Amino acid sequence: MAIPLRAAERHAITRLAEGLKLPTFTRGSVWLAGAGPGDPGLITALGLFALAGADVVLYDALVNPLLLELVRPGAELIFAGKRRGQPSCKQSEISATLIRLAHAKKRVLRLKGGDPFVFGRGAEEALALARAGISFRIVPGVTAGIGGLAYAGIPLTMRDTNHSVTFITGHDANGQLAKFDWDALARATPLLVAYMALAHADEIAARLLAAGRAPQTPAAIISAATTGQQIRQLTSLADLGEAARRAEPPAILVIGENVALAQELDWLSSDLGQQSPPQRRSSML
Amino acid sequence: MAIPLRAAERHAITRLAEGLKLPTFTRGSVWLAGAGPGDPGLITALGLFALAGADVVLYDALVNPLLLELVRPGAELIFAGKRRGQPSCKQSEISATLIRLAHAKKRVLRLKGGDPFVFGRGAEEALALARAGISFRIVPGVTAGIGGLAYAGIPLTMRDTNHSVTFITGHDANGQLAKFDWDALARATPLLVAYMALAHADEIAARLLAAGRAPQTPAAIISAATTGQQIRQLTSLADLGEAARRAEPPAILVIGENVALAQELDWLSSDLGQQSPPQRRSSML
Repeated sequence: MAIPLRAAERHAITRLAEGLKLPTFTRGSVWLAGAGPGDPGLITALGLFALAGADVVLYDALVNPLLLELVRPGAELIFAGKRRGQPSCKQSEISATLIRLAHAKKRVLRLKGGDPFVFGRGAEEALALARAGISFRIVPGVTAGIGGLAYAGIPLTMRDTNHSVTFITGHDANGQLAKFDWDALARATPLLVAYMALAHADEIAARLLAAGRAPQTPAAIISAATTGQQIRQLTSLADLGEAARRAEPPAILVIGENVALAQELDWLSSDLGQQSPPQRRSSML
Repeated sequence: MAIPLRAAERHAITRLAEGLKLPTFTRGSVWLAGAGPGDPGLITALGLFALAGADVVLYDALVNPLLLELVRPGAELIFAGKRRGQPSCKQSEISATLIRLAHAKKRVLRLKGGDPFVFGRGAEEALALARAGISFRIVPGVTAGIGGLAYAGIPLTMRDTNHSVTFITGHDANGQLAKFDWDALARATPLLVAYMALAHADEIAARLLAAGRAPQTPAAIISAATTGQQIRQLTSLADLGEAARRAEPPAILVIGENVALAQELDWLSSDLGQQSPPQRRSSML
């Protein structure tokens, strides 16, 4: 179990914030922050500072529980994520809650997994706040499509192989795969990273193969990226669908030649790297 | 001027690292870390911890100087970036230095702007370390293409407008624009983000227009993203080249409908947001 952070650590964060000249977390404002992909070490200094100063935190399912121990005594924690088999909070309810708490002069932290503007609904929340005249700040975070690849030993970019990369999501507003231009996607960039796409791995692979991508193109599935439970499957575009059936969500799919470097760059599970894995993540689901 | 962080802050970082169960920064290992796009508040907890524990830091030009004040007394700081008008360190020299310092049992921090695997040469450095048998860790960071857009009030993704986004770089190994499939790039994703592309903004716009993107497509140029000197120009695809001639590097180009939200989501310079801008960044160039 984690050692709960005490006044000393929260004070330390405040001192650090002074050193880094971080902005004031003012009453009646909302900070919309990313907590990173899972490893608590990937939260930003601004995110830490917001946790230590918030009066209330609305957090999602993929936020590491260790981070929530940083809040000060008396701070309110509100779960606003999805749990399997249970209906999730409605987006309109979350926005309304943020606005109500800001009007009540709270320091409100909205903490989301990854980055708030990358395939979350951060933009919708920010627009709701702007339209309600609430002061807000966006605190970016490390997104799983970048951080997760790094922990899997897969370079997002390599000077020799790709000068571009595309991110897609497997979930549109209805939980379906959006109507992409697959021919263009297949040709546009050598590397493709797909979020929340486990259920659609078969279709994604079929569409890319039909558009001319080679069956032997290296591919990977990274489940629970950057957490102590991270599982990395190395496969090929042809076998991606089958690998997806063995994988657990949340997962990131990666398709492209850079995946071929994953064995050589496997710092996380190599003998050399094993001295310092990220800690295990408590299950919240 | 910044208040130099003292033993108290470094101790605070160590306490925090225990609370978050961060891995040990062992002697003879190299941590390849991203410092974020400019605002020192966007470095990760792991990055802070590495700064406080490193024996030697090799840093790039775009790393915020405030962060370098976190090192402990006696730690060595080595500038490994490019300065205008001066030749930059050769990549092979940087890799050789990292390996030499690791062999000398130092805790070596290689600190790069943004994220180490996003259009830096982090992958080359990681491969050099792996091939030399050096223990290393990748510490992802917030990349300018995500963090810079957030500070400019531009959502990287919006449920109603884009389920995909593409990042390209304007610099290949020879400093030129790579040979992209522009027809595919124009159609693949509604939003396009270009790094280090100021000098090629004319060509990028011309290629996308030739491939059928509308001249009135909203576009933006964000210079010195997330720093106190951030300048945001809102323009259109047709006028992107002209706007680029007024812009200073480093800059990020953004092309797509999401840019149209930038006025409404301008939290950084709005009256409401002005109470908490990021601090000004000292010029290093």
